[in-house]
Amino acid sequence: LRAANPEHWRRATAIRTLTLDAVAAANSGHSGMPMGMADVATVLYEKHLKFDASRPDWPDRDRFVLSAGHGSMLLYSLLHLTGYPEMTIDQIRNFRQLGSITAGHPEYGHAPGIEVTTGPLGQGIATSVGMAIAEEIQRDRFGRKIVDHYTWVIVGDGCLMEGVSQEAIALAGHLQLSHLIVLWDDNGITIDGKVSIADSTDQKQRFKSANWDVIEVDGHDPVAIDEALEQAKKGKKPTMVACKTHIALGSSAQDTSKGHGALTDPQLIADTKRAYGWEGAPFEIPADLKSEWEAIGARGAEERAAWEMRFAEIGQGKRGEFERTYRGDAARKLPATIKALKRQMAESQPKMATRKSSETVLEIINPIMSETIGGSADLTGSNNTLTQDLGIFTPENRGGRYVYYGIREHGMAAAMNGMALHGGARPYGGTFFCFTDYARPAMRLSALMGLPVTYVMTHDSIGLGEDGPTHQPVEHLAICRATPNTNVFRPCDTVETAEAWELALTSTRTPSVLSLTRQSLPTLRTEFTNKNLVAQGAYVLAEAEGKRMAILLATGSEVEIAMKARDILQAEGIGTRVVSMPCWELFERQDEKYRKKVLPAGPVRVAVEAGCRMGWDRWLTGERGKRDKGAFVGMDDFGASAPAEVLFEHFGITAEAVAQATRNLL
Amino acid sequence: LRAANPEHWRRATAIRTLTLDAVAAANSGHSGMPMGMADVATVLYEKHLKFDASRPDWPDRDRFVLSAGHGSMLLYSLLHLTGYPEMTIDQIRNFRQLGSITAGHPEYGHAPGIEVTTGPLGQGIATSVGMAIAEEIQRDRFGRKIVDHYTWVIVGDGCLMEGVSQEAIALAGHLQLSHLIVLWDDNGITIDGKVSIADSTDQKQRFKSANWDVIEVDGHDPVAIDEALEQAKKGKKPTMVACKTHIALGSSAQDTSKGHGALTDPQLIADTKRAYGWEGAPFEIPADLKSEWEAIGARGAEERAAWEMRFAEIGQGKRGEFERTYRGDAARKLPATIKALKRQMAESQPKMATRKSSETVLEIINPIMSETIGGSADLTGSNNTLTQDLGIFTPENRGGRYVYYGIREHGMAAAMNGMALHGGARPYGGTFFCFTDYARPAMRLSALMGLPVTYVMTHDSIGLGEDGPTHQPVEHLAICRATPNTNVFRPCDTVETAEAWELALTSTRTPSVLSLTRQSLPTLRTEFTNKNLVAQGAYVLAEAEGKRMAILLATGSEVEIAMKARDILQAEGIGTRVVSMPCWELFERQDEKYRKKVLPAGPVRVAVEAGCRMGWDRWLTGERGKRDKGAFVGMDDFGASAPAEVLFEHFGITAEAVAQATRNLL
Repeated sequence: LRAANPEHWRRATAIRTLTLDAVAAANSGHSGMPMGMADVATVLYEKHLKFDASRPDWPDRDRFVLSAGHGSMLLYSLLHLTGYPEMTIDQIRNFRQLGSITAGHPEYGHAPGIEVTTGPLGQGIATSVGMAIAEEIQRDRFGRKIVDHYTWVIVGDGCLMEGVSQEAIALAGHLQLSHLIVLWDDNGITIDGKVSIADSTDQKQRFKSANWDVIEVDGHDPVAIDEALEQAKKGKKPTMVACKTHIALGSSAQDTSKGHGALTDPQLIADTKRAYGWEGAPFEIPADLKSEWEAIGARGAEERAAWEMRFAEIGQGKRGEFERTYRGDAARKLPATIKALKRQMAESQPKMATRKSSETVLEIINPIMSETIGGSADLTGSNNTLTQDLGIFTPENRGGRYVYYGIREHGMAAAMNGMALHGGARPYGGTFFCFTDYARPAMRLSALMGLPVTYVMTHDSIGLGEDGPTHQPVEHLAICRATPNTNVFRPCDTVETAEAWELALTSTRTPSVLSLTRQSLPTLRTEFTNKNLVAQGAYVLAEAEGKRMAILLATGSEVEIAMKARDILQAEGIGTRVVSMPCWELFERQDEKYRKKVLPAGPVRVAVEAGCRMGWDRWLTGERGKRDKGAFVGMDDFGASAPAEVLFEHFGITAEAVAQATRNLL
Repeated sequence: LRAANPEHWRRATAIRTLTLDAVAAANSGHSGMPMGMADVATVLYEKHLKFDASRPDWPDRDRFVLSAGHGSMLLYSLLHLTGYPEMTIDQIRNFRQLGSITAGHPEYGHAPGIEVTTGPLGQGIATSVGMAIAEEIQRDRFGRKIVDHYTWVIVGDGCLMEGVSQEAIALAGHLQLSHLIVLWDDNGITIDGKVSIADSTDQKQRFKSANWDVIEVDGHDPVAIDEALEQAKKGKKPTMVACKTHIALGSSAQDTSKGHGALTDPQLIADTKRAYGWEGAPFEIPADLKSEWEAIGARGAEERAAWEMRFAEIGQGKRGEFERTYRGDAARKLPATIKALKRQMAESQPKMATRKSSETVLEIINPIMSETIGGSADLTGSNNTLTQDLGIFTPENRGGRYVYYGIREHGMAAAMNGMALHGGARPYGGTFFCFTDYARPAMRLSALMGLPVTYVMTHDSIGLGEDGPTHQPVEHLAICRATPNTNVFRPCDTVETAEAWELALTSTRTPSVLSLTRQSLPTLRTEFTNKNLVAQGAYVLAEAEGKRMAILLATGSEVEIAMKARDILQAEGIGTRVVSMPCWELFERQDEKYRKKVLPAGPVRVAVEAGCRMGWDRWLTGERGKRDKGAFVGMDDFGASAPAEVLFEHFGITAEAVAQATRNLL
């Protein structure tokens, strides 16, 4: 194969040697995967991937996802060789060093051309499903002259063993995402040894059973690869190309788990380069070869220019909408729309579950924000995520903006990341808050990548009732709050829910978790305020009458309880302030002056939340609080199966319990 | 079918009507699944399941797992009808009420016959894989006269959409667990509507691709079901029986998503019962029919008695070992073995990563505790979980006690739950601590069910180094600590690691998470203590010299940093105590007197941990601490890719930073 394709071989070898050099310099990393997949990647970039290295932000570019993220040097090599300006040879030299853009695993935001953060296995393939959905929806909306591109994914055996890959391929197959093409690095090796020590799956049959087209190819034969990729693009279903490869090709560690890891032995590297027929110093690419690669990087420039012409010709309204949604700006009408709803709710004061409040908000948002893509993991009627105008996204209705994700919380979360990464889309998706657990790995990536995804998490406490402890969150608020760069909103009524949604929809770099109730709650924000009070994170909902002796802190459904406790305490002459704290993260970001205004030193503090205490001490004994003058009313164990009101009694989360806890401190 | 099998029909109808009555009384629940699967379950209990209702703890019984846990009334009906003493008709009447054993979803521990907590979809099938592995291992060890039973699992479409099901079936197929039989309730309906709105998977082909035998059957034909189950038992691979059923059979909601939920309309119930040919008051089972069912419940009594005879005949040593491991007692030699190691380590004072310390402990534990079953999710060499004597569990080597789980953290965790539930097994399994995220749903069930599973979570901070933020835990200690009934151990050296392992191995109702380092740590417990100090959760590792002005609190790798900070501070005349806090949960359980001894009022407090602050305020400003006299040195954002020592500097987790934070408070 090498003799038959000398130019191809030389180009692919550049990837292999850059990988060897970078891993050796870092003294860590994964050599084998880039060495094994260099041929496939070379053909992909040379002949199929639609891209222009000088304009990585071209919206209609193909997306390339390295799901096997440990093979990051494959991607960095490609970006360097094809001439992405940021990916200099110095960055390659600084592979895995502090401050470089060449992290151990590809990190979204470090450099153009890195479309997604990967490394936790299976995430790339699951994320790519969302990219492909976004592409389909936008192709339908803007026409194929403006949106018509593929999503290419390289997956390893590890990705395919992770459960989330099944959610992804089943969803993609069902939705017939024909612009999604998965290249499986079928090298038969994992860290522990041969794949066969842990897996006997017939992957080709598995993909076929999920409604995919499957092609097999020798992953080192450039002609065969080219044909396979060509064929893959023509399919009416998503396509999996099984690329039979040799990990760490050409080295003495070829086809071994040693080859999966860091090959740093100088002799091995020298021998391998000799076997490749490669000369020259480490990190050195012959100028003519670099030029060849840069020509590949410029290959799409013409097409990109043509696209820009076409884009300039579409109507101004469409163009404006396209540009606005790609910038990530909310609709201009949003603030006024939210305010109108707030005013209406402050007046009509409905008693409503906040999941229903959320639906009420979505009903006015979805018609004015064409970029929203809703969905639920088979709990549409419970999460209240579907509004009339959206339409269902199906193979027959690509304009639909609602995805029936099935019972696939993890796949849903990852797909939402993909939509946000793709651009022009603002996804939200629902499940029970407790099943945050299933979606965790992808939710963490939303936060790490800084994607404004919205998680609509309903049934957010023992208020869920009879379904019992497996369905009742206890530690989940703490989990979400402990995660960096995540805004956790727990609104107490429809007005706060509307404000939380406004913040979620205007977020640009932070995911939002909406923690919503199953059970009905009264409207507590009965006075209309122009200002978005949730934006401050916490605020005084009800001031103490008389001397301020106690401050009650609460979120969500427990704000009602705090208000009732206040009634009890005020009746006893205990001046009591109620602070609603719908978003800790935003409150933390307020200046000391405001925080002190809300939580002054002096009064005793009691927090009430139908979750665990973890984290509350910060607000009780920290922040001008005082040891022995703070108490918490909430859960300290798992829930139980019974009607909600019985459970609140049983676990002692009541107005009387809050009042008593307050009295005990005074 | 009904006319051809009138007796069967009547028996199955008892399940259906009990379900209708219980759901109506609770005014919530899921009627359709038990109504649809009543025929399959009746045949299973009547003709195949090896059980004796009077002795639900018979170790060689078949295990029945209701993976589709929302259909809990199917299980409760079967337990009641076959005569499990605890499952009275009053319990059925109190379905989903506080204090009843008939929770919304089956809760392990509520009643004999409930083999596992289910409800979060996919968990049952993934758990059953561990049961089947435990059975294979024990069959090999004790012989088939003592251990020879099946694990039967009913799964729904939801279970099969969850990614964890793929991990489970791929693992089971690979391991050729022929005693595992999955009965798929193929009813084509989910909450959101028909399965076909979200899934097009050919499940039969999917299971075949994972090395399973597949049988199809009409799920309402008792003769066909009987044949299928008979055939399933004979296979050499795990078997999936696709049971074509009608959800909510016989009601006007049959074959609809309405039928999936709670059918509570009195007219519908009356009509359905009439269609069944059923008379009598709610919850009333004709005496003759109850007798028939109780005969089924007693069917296995003879076999059980025969088993007891056989069991009495095996050698005393084997019998003792069997009984000890089923009681969950640790080996008698354990304390002495751990002590000897502690003494040796206190003397030799090795510098060692705690993951390596863990291996050192396992090397002496595994030979004396035959019930341990180790494994790793493809990180064996990194988690240091494999010891020489274990042997690998494969189809050819059923005596092997080490499982190559593949890249399946979630499936591993669930399988470990299954082993612990099965009895006679004490599982542990490893992955990177960050990938706790993948295993979360099953880890929560370990805690909820009270199973003494041990999670060996290595690479537990930015100390992991170059792999970067996707692999570096930040919030994961908080996540595990926020979860009820979970002991989180973060040992600082080999001695603490040995003590933590001793506690994990003697735990009976609480899972343990061992948070272990990649990087080397010095031995800090250089003085041998007979007592297990980790058992107290926190203790004084180094006392202040001179006036005690500061207390430094630390865990794991940061205890070394605290000790160095103490050196700095003492040199400046600042008397500094260092408290090692390897297990918050155990410290919380100490009495006030001990806690006060460790954390007295007065000195300033600085905590250092390479994780997020969440939870630390409790120990800094609570527990006799003082506002503005506590500080935390740790992470407040995601990590980065660089060598570990660079990262500790970069994120300011250093002895000097701790010393400075202390000075700032004084």
